[in-house]
Amino acid sequence: MIIIPKKDYDKSQLDNLVHWLEDKGLQVHQSKGENMTVLGLIGDTSKIDIDLIRSLDVVEDVKRIQEPFKNANRKFHPEDTVVDVNGAKIGGGNFQFIAGPCSVESEEQIIGIAKAVKAAGANLLRGGAFKPRTSPYAFQGLRGEGIRLLLEAKKETGLPIVTEIMDISQLPLFEEVDVLQVGARNMQNFELLKELGKLRKPILLKRGMSSTLQELVMSAEYIMAGGNTQVILCERGIRTFETSTRNTLDLCAVSVLKQMSHLPVVIDPSHATGYAKYVRPMSLAAAAAGADGLIIEVHNDPQHALCDGQQSITPEAFASLAENVKAILPYAAKRGEV
Amino acid sequence: MIIIPKKDYDKSQLDNLVHWLEDKGLQVHQSKGENMTVLGLIGDTSKIDIDLIRSLDVVEDVKRIQEPFKNANRKFHPEDTVVDVNGAKIGGGNFQFIAGPCSVESEEQIIGIAKAVKAAGANLLRGGAFKPRTSPYAFQGLRGEGIRLLLEAKKETGLPIVTEIMDISQLPLFEEVDVLQVGARNMQNFELLKELGKLRKPILLKRGMSSTLQELVMSAEYIMAGGNTQVILCERGIRTFETSTRNTLDLCAVSVLKQMSHLPVVIDPSHATGYAKYVRPMSLAAAAAGADGLIIEVHNDPQHALCDGQQSITPEAFASLAENVKAILPYAAKRGEV
Amino acid sequence: MIIIPKKDYDKSQLDNLVHWLEDKGLQVHQSKGENMTVLGLIGDTSKIDIDLIRSLDVVEDVKRIQEPFKNANRKFHPEDTVVDVNGAKIGGGNFQFIAGPCSVESEEQIIGIAKAVKAAGANLLRGGAFKPRTSPYAFQGLRGEGIRLLLEAKKETGLPIVTEIMDISQLPLFEEVDVLQVGARNMQNFELLKELGKLRKPILLKRGMSSTLQELVMSAEYIMAGGNTQVILCERGIRTFETSTRNTLDLCAVSVLKQMSHLPVVIDPSHATGYAKYVRPMSLAAAAAGADGLIIEVHNDPQHALCDGQQSITPEAFASLAENVKAILPYAAKRGEV
Amino acid sequence: MIIIPKKDYDKSQLDNLVHWLEDKGLQVHQSKGENMTVLGLIGDTSKIDIDLIRSLDVVEDVKRIQEPFKNANRKFHPEDTVVDVNGAKIGGGNFQFIAGPCSVESEEQIIGIAKAVKAAGANLLRGGAFKPRTSPYAFQGLRGEGIRLLLEAKKETGLPIVTEIMDISQLPLFEEVDVLQVGARNMQNFELLKELGKLRKPILLKRGMSSTLQELVMSAEYIMAGGNTQVILCERGIRTFETSTRNTLDLCAVSVLKQMSHLPVVIDPSHATGYAKYVRPMSLAAAAAGADGLIIEVHNDPQHALCDGQQSITPEAFASLAENVKAILPYAAKRGEV
Repeated sequence: MIIIPKKDYDKSQLDNLVHWLEDKGLQVHQSKGENMTVLGLIGDTSKIDIDLIRSLDVVEDVKRIQEPFKNANRKFHPEDTVVDVNGAKIGGGNFQFIAGPCSVESEEQIIGIAKAVKAAGANLLRGGAFKPRTSPYAFQGLRGEGIRLLLEAKKETGLPIVTEIMDISQLPLFEEVDVLQVGARNMQNFELLKELGKLRKPILLKRGMSSTLQELVMSAEYIMAGGNTQVILCERGIRTFETSTRNTLDLCAVSVLKQMSHLPVVIDPSHATGYAKYVRPMSLAAAAAGADGLIIEVHNDPQHALCDGQQSITPEAFASLAENVKAILPYAAKRGEV
Repeated sequence: MIIIPKKDYDKSQLDNLVHWLEDKGLQVHQSKGENMTVLGLIGDTSKIDIDLIRSLDVVEDVKRIQEPFKNANRKFHPEDTVVDVNGAKIGGGNFQFIAGPCSVESEEQIIGIAKAVKAAGANLLRGGAFKPRTSPYAFQGLRGEGIRLLLEAKKETGLPIVTEIMDISQLPLFEEVDVLQVGARNMQNFELLKELGKLRKPILLKRGMSSTLQELVMSAEYIMAGGNTQVILCERGIRTFETSTRNTLDLCAVSVLKQMSHLPVVIDPSHATGYAKYVRPMSLAAAAAGADGLIIEVHNDPQHALCDGQQSITPEAFASLAENVKAILPYAAKRGEV
Repeated sequence: MIIIPKKDYDKSQLDNLVHWLEDKGLQVHQSKGENMTVLGLIGDTSKIDIDLIRSLDVVEDVKRIQEPFKNANRKFHPEDTVVDVNGAKIGGGNFQFIAGPCSVESEEQIIGIAKAVKAAGANLLRGGAFKPRTSPYAFQGLRGEGIRLLLEAKKETGLPIVTEIMDISQLPLFEEVDVLQVGARNMQNFELLKELGKLRKPILLKRGMSSTLQELVMSAEYIMAGGNTQVILCERGIRTFETSTRNTLDLCAVSVLKQMSHLPVVIDPSHATGYAKYVRPMSLAAAAAGADGLIIEVHNDPQHALCDGQQSITPEAFASLAENVKAILPYAAKRGEV
Repeated sequence: MIIIPKKDYDKSQLDNLVHWLEDKGLQVHQSKGENMTVLGLIGDTSKIDIDLIRSLDVVEDVKRIQEPFKNANRKFHPEDTVVDVNGAKIGGGNFQFIAGPCSVESEEQIIGIAKAVKAAGANLLRGGAFKPRTSPYAFQGLRGEGIRLLLEAKKETGLPIVTEIMDISQLPLFEEVDVLQVGARNMQNFELLKELGKLRKPILLKRGMSSTLQELVMSAEYIMAGGNTQVILCERGIRTFETSTRNTLDLCAVSVLKQMSHLPVVIDPSHATGYAKYVRPMSLAAAAAGADGLIIEVHNDPQHALCDGQQSITPEAFASLAENVKAILPYAAKRGEV
C-alpha cells in the first residue's frame, strides 16, 4: 500500500498514522522528495481498511498494491483449485455441465428432466426449491418439499444436486444437498456467507448483479476465511443500460477471475441473457473463453408449461449444445497464454 | 395487462392461455383486427407473472398497464402514509433528521454524539451495531453490545433509535429498537423481508445499489403483504460508471417514488456520495426535491478517529446544515405540482 | 404500434389523434372494452415518433410492435448482407481478421506490421491516422500523412485498409481508403453519418460506449437511408461499473444484432478489454458466439515502443490466436439454431 | 505522478523510462525500499499519457496525483469564472434561467415563447435549430431557417440565444448566435471542440450520457486549449439501469465540478428526467445544490402541439418554478462549505 500525504500535512498527525500502522505489524518506508512524500507499507495489508486511511485529514490519496484477499488469491495459491462433487470435478482443466429446471415442480418433472440431462451429458442436476422472486405474490418454490424431490431425483439418477439457499435458517434442510448455491441477490449477505464458511461442502457463489469481480472474490474470501475452501465462482450477467437481454453477460470475467483467484469459474447463460435463443451462443462462447463449466436451465416442456421461464431450453437443445461445447473445449483459452 | 399474440399464432394455444387467465379470475377482452390481435386483461393482474406470459410460444409481447404492487400503491391509497416513531413523524409533510455515527464504538462515543445531534435538531439517532463489510477482515460492528449501547443513548436522550438488521437470527436482539433498517445489500433478502412483515414497527428500507425504483417498492410490498404498513423508503445512491463519488445519488427518486407509492421517502447523502464535503449540498438538494427526511452520518471527531468513514460530518456541520434545510423546506417541491 | 389512451380520455382529443395518424397513411383499429380502449396502428410506423405520441395528454402508454428501422431490418431482408472489400468478404459465413497498430507511426512501422499480420492470416489492415484522444495534449495521430502511409502499406501488401474518420471535413483524404471506420464517440454524429450515406463504400460502425443495440442499428439506418448499404457493425465494449477491464464486452450483441439486422457483426476485443492478456480469450469467445470477424490491435514491438497501448498483441500472438479461431469456427453458433 | 515498477523489473528498462521522462522535462525522484521501488515525478505531468506508462513491461502500476487538465483546473485558477452573455452573467454567484422550446417551429411560436419566458424571468432563450435525432426519419430541425427565426426572437425581446451546433460545417450560420451549445452526443467530437476553441464566444458544453465528470472537464480543456475560456458546463443526466426517468440526473456533479474546475455549471432538468412533472423538483434541487443556472424546455402549448416533447413545461409552470428557485437561492450550497 502506498500512502500519499497532503502537500502541507501536519507532521504530528503523520507520525500518529505511522505509529498506528507499525502497531498493526507493518513496516513503513518513508520517501521524502522536495515536493512530495510517499509512505510505502511493507507487510500484510489485506486487513487494513483503505477507506479508513483515505478519510484521514493528513492523507491526499492511497493506493493498494496488494489485493485485499488472501485465501482466494492466485498469488498465494498458484495452482487451480479443483472442486470435486461426488466425483464430478470442476476446475483445473475439468469442465462440467450443471443442468436442470428453473423450479422443482413435481416428482415426475424433476426425475424426468434429471434423466434427460444426464443422458445429454450433464454431471450435476440443478433445480430451485427456494425461489427468490421480485414479487411477494409470485411462486416462491416448493421449499423443503422441493429439496426432498431433488434428493429423489439424485437417488434415481446418481446426479449430485445443486440448489439455492436463501437464509441461514434453511440450513438444516440442506444437509444432503451436494452443492449449496448462493444467489446473486445474496452475494453480500455476509451473515449467510459466514455460516457457509463453517461447512465443508462446495458452495456455488453467484456474482451480484452490480458487483465488481473483486467484490465477488471478497465474498468468496468470507466463505474461505471460515475454512471452507470449496468455492465455485459463477458469472450470471450484470445490470447495464442495455435492454435487449435481461442482463449483460461479462464473459471476460472468466479470464479476470482466473488471474485474481485459483477458484473455478462457471457461467450461467440462462439468467445472463434471459432468452432461450441466446443460451447456445453464450454457452459456446463461455467454453471458448476458458470457463470451467456451465449452469443451464433445461425444461422438458418449455412451450406448454406455465411455470417456466422463457430462458429454458429443451433437453434436445441441451444435448446438441453440449456436443458443440465439447468440440470447442480443446481450442479454449488457457490462463497465461497471450 | 395487454397481451399481443404472435402474428401466426396457434389458435388452440391461445385458447389455452385465455382459459388459464380466466381461471385466475381475469376477464379477457379479445380485439381482432385484420393484421393484429390484442388481448386486454381486466381485473387484478398484480399476481400474474409477466415473464411467464412472455415466455409462451404463442406470445409476441406483453405490456403491463397496472403496476404489480397493491399495498404500496398510491393509486389504492392516495393519502401520504405518516410513520410515527415515538412521536417523531415522517411523511405527509413531516420532515425528520436521523443522525449518528457510522458504527457504535463505545458508550461514551454514542451518548456524546446522541446529545450533540439532538441539540442540533435530530429527532432520531442512527448507529451501526451490525456492519455489512465487503471484507471479512474489516470491523464487523459491536453487534449485540452495540444495540445495548444504542439503547443506553436512547435512555439518556430520549431519541428513538434506527439500526440495521442483517439476518433473521438477529431479530430477538432488536426487540427494543424503534426502527429496523434494511441495508442496500439486503433489499432483496426476501426471507428477511417476510419476517419483518410480521412485525408491527417501522422499517427503513434502503434501495439496493442496482435496484430500480419499482424493485424497491416491490420489496416494500413484501413487508406490507405481511401486514406491516410502516415502511420508510430510502434512496442512498446507485452504482454507475462515475467514480468521483462513491455512488450516484438519484434525487429524482423522491418524485418518482411519491408518485408510485404513498410511503415516505428519505435520503442518505452520506453513503450516496461517500465524502463529507458533498453531504451538505446533497442534503439541501434533497430537501428542495421534496424528501421527507435525511439520514446522515455524524461523528464527534472525524479527523482523529481511525474507525470512522470519510463521509461523516461534525455535529457543528450538521447543525448548520439542519438550519439551512429548514430554511429551504417551505419552498420544497410538493407532489403533483408541475 | 399499440396506443393505450388514458382511462378518462377526452374524446375530441382522441379523435384528433386518430385523424392525425390516418393522415400519416396509417390504419387505426380501435378496440373498446368496458374498462379499456386500445388503438392498434396498421401500416408503416417506422417514421412515427414514439416519444411524441407518449407526450400527448390523452395517451397513457404506447408500445411499438414494429422496429423503427427498415433498411437495416432483418425482417425485410432475411438473407445476410455480405460486405465485399476488394475480395475480402465479411458476413454470410465469411469470417475476416482486421489487424494492425493502434496508430500509424512511420512508414517502416506500418509496412512491417502489415506484412506480419498478412502472414499471420489477416485480410485487412487497420491503423489510426486520426486519433480521438480524451486529452488535447495527447498525440492526435499523423492525420493526412498517416493515411498516405497506410496507402503505402496497402501498395506493398495488397491488404485493403480500414481507418477512422472523425469529421466530414476530412472526407477528401479518405478517397482511396477501403473501409471508413466511425468510432464509438461518433456513433451518433448524425451529420457525419448522413455524409457517409452518400458514399458507396463500406463503413465500419462502432457501437457507442453507452449506446443500446437498437441505437447502433438506428445509426446504421442513417447511413443506409442515404443509399449506402455496406455497413459493418462492431461491438467494442460498453461502459459499466466494472473496473477490472476498460469496458465490458457485450458478446451477446452478436446474436441480438444478427436477429435484428442482416448486417455483418465484428468484435473488437482490444478496445473492449483494454489489456493484451484478454484479447485471446475474447477473440476465441467471439468466434464461438458467431461473429463475422475480429478487429485486433497488433504492434511489432509492444514492449519497447512508448507510443503504443497496453492492449496490443504481438504478430506472433496474433498468428497463434488466428489459428485457434479458425479451429473454433466450424463449431460456432449459427443464427436461428437454439 | 507515482510510478510503481514491477517487483523484479529489468534495470535497463527502468533506466530507459527514467531518461525518457527526464527528456519530457520532468524530475524523477526514485525511492528504493527493500521490497519496493517508487518513482515520483515532479513537474507538469498533464501531458503525460498515463495509459502509455501503464502499458510498459517494467511498470506494475501508475497513479496520477495531478489532474490531466490545466486551463479548466480550479487549482491554477481559484476564482470562479463568470461568463457574460450580453450582460447576462453566469457563475461566481450569478444565477440564470435559459428557457425556450425543444425545437424552433415557426416565427410565431418562437417569438411567443421568447416573450413568455422573458416575462417569467428568463435571461437567455434556448431553441433547437439543428436537432440530433436517433432516427433518420424524425424531424431534423429547421436548421439554417431555425437560426434565422431565433435571431428574430432575439431582435424582438433582446434575449441572447443559445442553440446547438452539430458539425464544423455549420459554423458560418452561427455567427450571430450568442452561445453555441455542444450536445451530449458531441461532447467528445474532438474536431468540433478544437474549432470552437478558436472562437471567442461562450460555449455551453453538455456532459455525454456516459461520460465521467473528468472527461467533461477534459472536453472543456480542448476548447480552452485553443484560447476560448468562456465555457459553461452542463449536467443533463447520465445513462443508468433505471427506467422510470429517461436519464439519471447526477446532481452531485455540481459540487464535484466546482471543486475540479472554476467554470460555471448549469443543470438541464428537462432532458435529464424526460418528463414535465419532474422538471420542477429537479430545478429546485439544482438551485439548492449550488448550480449557476438552469436550462429548461418551455412550450406555449404542450398539450396540443404534436411536435413537442413530453418534457416541456408551460410558461406558467416556468414562472412559478422560477419564483421558487429564487426563494431557495439564498440558502443554496456554497463551494467549500462543509
